Amino acid sequence: MQKIAIIVAGGSGVRMGSALPKQFLPLKNKPVLQYTLETFLLSFPDLQIILVLPDAYLNMGMELIEKIPLHQRIRLVAGGVTRFHSVKAGLSVIPPQTNAIIFVHDAVRCLISTKLIQQCYQQAMEKGSAIPAIKATDSIRQTINDTSKPLNRDEIFLVQTPQTFRSDILLSAFQQEHQPEFTDEATVVEYSGVPIHLIEGEHQNIKITRPIDLLIAEKFLDDPSLF
Amino acid sequence: MQKIAIIVAGGSGVRMGSALPKQFLPLKNKPVLQYTLETFLLSFPDLQIILVLPDAYLNMGMELIEKIPLHQRIRLVAGGVTRFHSVKAGLSVIPPQTNAIIFVHDAVRCLISTKLIQQCYQQAMEKGSAIPAIKATDSIRQTINDTSKPLNRDEIFLVQTPQTFRSDILLSAFQQEHQPEFTDEATVVEYSGVPIHLIEGEHQNIKITRPIDLLIAEKFLDDPSLF
Repeated sequence: MQKIAIIVAGGSGVRMGSALPKQFLPLKNKPVLQYTLETFLLSFPDLQIILVLPDAYLNMGMELIEKIPLHQRIRLVAGGVTRFHSVKAGLSVIPPQTNAIIFVHDAVRCLISTKLIQQCYQQAMEKGSAIPAIKATDSIRQTINDTSKPLNRDEIFLVQTPQTFRSDILLSAFQQEHQPEFTDEATVVEYSGVPIHLIEGEHQNIKITRPIDLLIAEKFLDDPSLF
Repeated sequence: MQKIAIIVAGGSGVRMGSALPKQFLPLKNKPVLQYTLETFLLSFPDLQIILVLPDAYLNMGMELIEKIPLHQRIRLVAGGVTRFHSVKAGLSVIPPQTNAIIFVHDAVRCLISTKLIQQCYQQAMEKGSAIPAIKATDSIRQTINDTSKPLNRDEIFLVQTPQTFRSDILLSAFQQEHQPEFTDEATVVEYSGVPIHLIEGEHQNIKITRPIDLLIAEKFLDDPSLF
């Protein structure tokens, strides 16, 4: 079965207080995005990457890719105005009859393991999809108008990526018109009437959002047992 | 108005892979718990602390307290088998007619600010309670049997401490029998029929749970702007 990873990088670095988008910030000796790309390339020898970057950063992305030994397996595509449109742009270069497992992954989740990628593949082969998620560790409340109610923590999951799907399911779901409910690929697929399947994510599979996250990532690379 | 903080420390350090409970682990130059105690003592000159520790750690707690200049404002109490019973043990040394604002705080949330403590006080004075919480940053799903559904991230809050109440509300709620639904003080108070009031928490007000959290706390103390 073919394996295609769509690695999506969003906009700018506002929350980082940095001019450079998060995926290009240095983490130890190389950019955040390079870790992500290398882990996907390592996870399967025949995996292809479609890297979706904002238009303004295609050149910077190209420079980065050229440093990666296996870069002939990476293809660069310009993103759209929302996450949905960026993923759709990535999918548009996949021939319609392709039979593949497609991973959609946040470029800034650079601590992902090859093991989780491989598990997502296996589960998506079996069940049609695999969405990694971890249980919440805090007490959780849901607000309803001016009040709130406690939710059962054992039922609440924080969703990660790679959101992984059989290509027929994902390609057909992305034929739909964009909806405001589309916060991730799982919601797009569900909206098309196909249920999704959760699997156990990884605690260290964090999204680099704030400056502290880069330091956490650095510590993890120094000593993974800390997590 | 009187101000009483019940600082609760739970059991052992299993998740830290350490023999010492988390509240006694060193963070830079002093134990985690000492930061928590000092910030509460600093937040109001007339605030009293009831520190609830497991039986086996009362001596260690006493040694720590004696190092704190304002320790005459701290009273030590032995905890119970659950969080509910520990808080109840702390409340039991408060005279029934007391008119106070009572804060219940996790001992291992050592990065709490005096500002948040003061805001909890103001809001609890006005509304009867103040429960700090922050919005989720990940996509959230709720599992229902074998399926799951997306929740609206804007409605989902991760609950922190200090959970803060007018003493009449809290003392009367803790007269109830223990229920399995009692995951925090907010749920105890709600179960007694009194609605609770959420306020904006703080991103750095984390619970020290894993080894990485100690390193995050250290980075925060070095440079709070990272958060």
